[in-house]
Amino acid sequence: MVTHMGLVGLGKMGDNMRERLRRAGIGVTGYDPRPEVSDVGSLAELVEALPGPRRVVWVMVPAGEPTREVVSALAGLLDEGDVVIEGGNSHYPDDQERAAELAERGVGYVDVGVSGGVWGLENGYGLMCGGSDADVAFLMPVFDALRPEGPREEGFVHAGPVGAGHFAKMVHNGIEYGLMQAYAEGYEMLAAKDIVTDVHGTMRAWQRGTVVRSWLLELMVRALEDDPRFDAIDDWVADSGEGRWTVDEAIDNAVPLPVISAALFARFSSRQEESPAMKAVAALRQQFGGHATKPSAE
Amino acid sequence: MVTHMGLVGLGKMGDNMRERLRRAGIGVTGYDPRPEVSDVGSLAELVEALPGPRRVVWVMVPAGEPTREVVSALAGLLDEGDVVIEGGNSHYPDDQERAAELAERGVGYVDVGVSGGVWGLENGYGLMCGGSDADVAFLMPVFDALRPEGPREEGFVHAGPVGAGHFAKMVHNGIEYGLMQAYAEGYEMLAAKDIVTDVHGTMRAWQRGTVVRSWLLELMVRALEDDPRFDAIDDWVADSGEGRWTVDEAIDNAVPLPVISAALFARFSSRQEESPAMKAVAALRQQFGGHATKPSAE
Amino acid sequence: MVTHMGLVGLGKMGDNMRERLRRAGIGVTGYDPRPEVSDVGSLAELVEALPGPRRVVWVMVPAGEPTREVVSALAGLLDEGDVVIEGGNSHYPDDQERAAELAERGVGYVDVGVSGGVWGLENGYGLMCGGSDADVAFLMPVFDALRPEGPREEGFVHAGPVGAGHFAKMVHNGIEYGLMQAYAEGYEMLAAKDIVTDVHGTMRAWQRGTVVRSWLLELMVRALEDDPRFDAIDDWVADSGEGRWTVDEAIDNAVPLPVISAALFARFSSRQEESPAMKAVAALRQQFGGHATKPSAE
Amino acid sequence: MVTHMGLVGLGKMGDNMRERLRRAGIGVTGYDPRPEVSDVGSLAELVEALPGPRRVVWVMVPAGEPTREVVSALAGLLDEGDVVIEGGNSHYPDDQERAAELAERGVGYVDVGVSGGVWGLENGYGLMCGGSDADVAFLMPVFDALRPEGPREEGFVHAGPVGAGHFAKMVHNGIEYGLMQAYAEGYEMLAAKDIVTDVHGTMRAWQRGTVVRSWLLELMVRALEDDPRFDAIDDWVADSGEGRWTVDEAIDNAVPLPVISAALFARFSSRQEESPAMKAVAALRQQFGGHATKPSAE
Repeated sequence: MVTHMGLVGLGKMGDNMRERLRRAGIGVTGYDPRPEVSDVGSLAELVEALPGPRRVVWVMVPAGEPTREVVSALAGLLDEGDVVIEGGNSHYPDDQERAAELAERGVGYVDVGVSGGVWGLENGYGLMCGGSDADVAFLMPVFDALRPEGPREEGFVHAGPVGAGHFAKMVHNGIEYGLMQAYAEGYEMLAAKDIVTDVHGTMRAWQRGTVVRSWLLELMVRALEDDPRFDAIDDWVADSGEGRWTVDEAIDNAVPLPVISAALFARFSSRQEESPAMKAVAALRQQFGGHATKPSAE
Repeated sequence: MVTHMGLVGLGKMGDNMRERLRRAGIGVTGYDPRPEVSDVGSLAELVEALPGPRRVVWVMVPAGEPTREVVSALAGLLDEGDVVIEGGNSHYPDDQERAAELAERGVGYVDVGVSGGVWGLENGYGLMCGGSDADVAFLMPVFDALRPEGPREEGFVHAGPVGAGHFAKMVHNGIEYGLMQAYAEGYEMLAAKDIVTDVHGTMRAWQRGTVVRSWLLELMVRALEDDPRFDAIDDWVADSGEGRWTVDEAIDNAVPLPVISAALFARFSSRQEESPAMKAVAALRQQFGGHATKPSAE
Repeated sequence: MVTHMGLVGLGKMGDNMRERLRRAGIGVTGYDPRPEVSDVGSLAELVEALPGPRRVVWVMVPAGEPTREVVSALAGLLDEGDVVIEGGNSHYPDDQERAAELAERGVGYVDVGVSGGVWGLENGYGLMCGGSDADVAFLMPVFDALRPEGPREEGFVHAGPVGAGHFAKMVHNGIEYGLMQAYAEGYEMLAAKDIVTDVHGTMRAWQRGTVVRSWLLELMVRALEDDPRFDAIDDWVADSGEGRWTVDEAIDNAVPLPVISAALFARFSSRQEESPAMKAVAALRQQFGGHATKPSAE
Repeated sequence: MVTHMGLVGLGKMGDNMRERLRRAGIGVTGYDPRPEVSDVGSLAELVEALPGPRRVVWVMVPAGEPTREVVSALAGLLDEGDVVIEGGNSHYPDDQERAAELAERGVGYVDVGVSGGVWGLENGYGLMCGGSDADVAFLMPVFDALRPEGPREEGFVHAGPVGAGHFAKMVHNGIEYGLMQAYAEGYEMLAAKDIVTDVHGTMRAWQRGTVVRSWLLELMVRALEDDPRFDAIDDWVADSGEGRWTVDEAIDNAVPLPVISAALFARFSSRQEESPAMKAVAALRQQFGGHATKPSAE
């Protein structure tokens, strides 16, 4: 029974998760390099603060190198029977590598995709996990504390072996890219014509009864409430790894992903000051037809 | 105050709407060419059965020619002050034409986009309407009876003048195409790899707490419940007008719609026995490289 | 035998065509509202200057209203047996309308799609025409004068009845959109990485022996010669009707056009100062994750 | 001065290249595991047959493991000053690895992208190479023998350091995917309507004077000549690595590639018996609207 656990990484997500776990009665010792939010001074102190047997450490730091470093450090501090939970947005092959590294010392590894953003503290987090049946069963109190109210199977899944949690989360995020772009294109269509005189009101009215109702739609309505033409916001959109991995994975498996890839490319385009490709098209048109081009504004 | 109204077209949608209106205490005389579902024997009988002043007839027949015919027939039966509601999936320029035709006789016209499918009877219908303030205000009891429970503005909008309701519904359906394709691509990704051992369970777990939760996701989970690999269903997908109009409209307004158009084209492809384009690509590859092609199965 | 003909519209294309026809020994009386380039003072003078029987007038003015006006005016000036050739980029249903209008007076109509741009004067023009066998046969000397050297069937086609010429030209231009975008994306890929140290030289080397060699590639190489990173050119790209019609037509016929539509949408995007859709995506990300957005630069 | 060289891999490409080199006066000893086409019995015999100093071996075997094995074997047989040319379709990071392996023994490495297919024997091959200036200069007689007639810079480029040749070839092939799909979509549009009565003749007429003229168009015309509706060919299209790598590389560099990715996905779709994604869309439509679906044909 897990009654006290460690949590490494107290950013926006980690901090909220510590709070939600504590509210559920699970003790949490948190570590973060920033002393003002950290409960202990080092990873080693964190591990010492945990009760045995079967110590549990949840890692919630940026994917890639930062996660790799924390897991490696934990490998040197933990013992047989302990378990590491990787809750960041790791690429699933990295999970398989890290699980193998920890397995050499008898330390378990469970990867968890966590969805819900800043709303998770109050609403709970959607959780997809990958790992052994035994490890997942042991950690269920932790997952039950974090997941949303309601039937467990509607906010939590043991999706498969190590890596399956982050694979599922990767696909989840790929879908998210497509959904967001679909709503965004619809918004632009409504805003492009004068006939719909109340764009915000129209999307607000889609929240009940319609086929397109969703949580993302509700967020869109909230965003339009304060700024009904998005005047205060730039059209620059970041992307964070999972969308790219989803398309990479699709290519490896010969799966056509026209919508998710289009959503990803729209983000790439949004960040270009100028499009080299469209300069090339303009140059071509000029060559064959003497078509007017605009001189570069640079 | 509308206490009794006419309803033309008692198909899947119209029949349910008649029932929901009656449950809300609004009398409905329904007409349909199929006598077994119709309350009266003709359009003329329907109009005679309605109390004045300001008779109300809701038209709920297939878009295009059928709707045009019913509205023209009503133009000959109704008088000044009466109102026709076009609740089918008309193309918005058709609304503007029909409204002008009725206006010549002093008959009002309100177009309403109705979303909700077979679930509307119990959940209520999302409604987007276009028309004059006076006509819409007069019809509010009807709309309140049909729309979902909860705040009116979350399930109903007066989107603008005549045509705005169906324009909003057209965009709504365009978004719907994109959303469905995004979930579908995600489903295919999950199903393409062995790592996620429970595809149905994974999508089921997205229903609470996650960013991708929505009503469409809930329907996907229901569909997977009975047939977790969609073995019993063909990959042939119809399209019904609004998706095409959305892309046409985007082109007229120079709005880029990569996701919605990709979703539309995926449906076109799904209905082709063979792709002429891909035969051409295969032929080209054979020409330049002597690449193997498969002889046609025809 | 056509030895002398009229030509209405002496812009970049019309002026060059008059010159090429004259070089081939066909007399041309040209009319244009700009007196400095026109041979006559009015359409009526142009028609008077033509020898009968079977006068021939080639119309080469912008598609849409300008073409409609000229053809209508010619309808009042020409007689039975005369022929109008519409050589602009008319939408093919307009050809069918105009041909019917002229047929009432016994005047023939042939639509011709003309490709080749400013290079046509020297290289000849690729011609696709639609009309009756008799009219096309009568006009062959004109087409032979304009088309490129070499076998007739490699630069000229009688594609079908009235409208077929512009339908073929529309599809030709749709393909052109896709080809240009493909080269442009490839250019951007080469320019995005340091590994290829000579982008211009690389594309120049594709002109002989490779699978991608083409006239458009040669134009790209010319464009890169003077401006190897397109520093002097803006990424703003116009579109001129045929691309839009191609996608509209595809939608009417349920033909999937992922590449040509993507090329069209890329042009739409290139002309947007800001993308409303991407503002919406940025707003959504901010709502659910507190993700950083850039304040609008407006 | 290279007067005699080795060539490993005598498939369709290698066999033709041996012939073209010999016609140009360069001696070639070819090795292939199939004795009926091989000049020698083993790689070791091939190396022994080459004159020093600076022996040259061109490797022309399938990318990936086969190429890796041949280059490793050559590493053990060659000496300081010798050069290996990798002419297959290797992924460019593999070139960098193999060059480093050979450099340990003082053996040079040049990667060459070769375009032209079965037509290269007569037309010459478009060549893009990566390597040191010294190695490339030494090998110029070989490249001059293989490249097409005409100015060297129109059929050959030294694109950059090791890897640049295959990077350029990868992008070349990505463009090729886009070009082929553009022509194929255009073909489908022509074939979809009755108005163009001669599809083959129309595309044939695009070969001179038009903006879309190209070698690929000529191949399309050839293909249509024998089979004007592609009745004898299946719509199943393979893909061979470079298209996938191009999109992967674009994702790594945040370059939007809507056209090339759409062309790649069209190939993936062409090989699916059934689309899992479109089954999912059909299932969704059935859930919300009771829309008809087709029972699976399986």
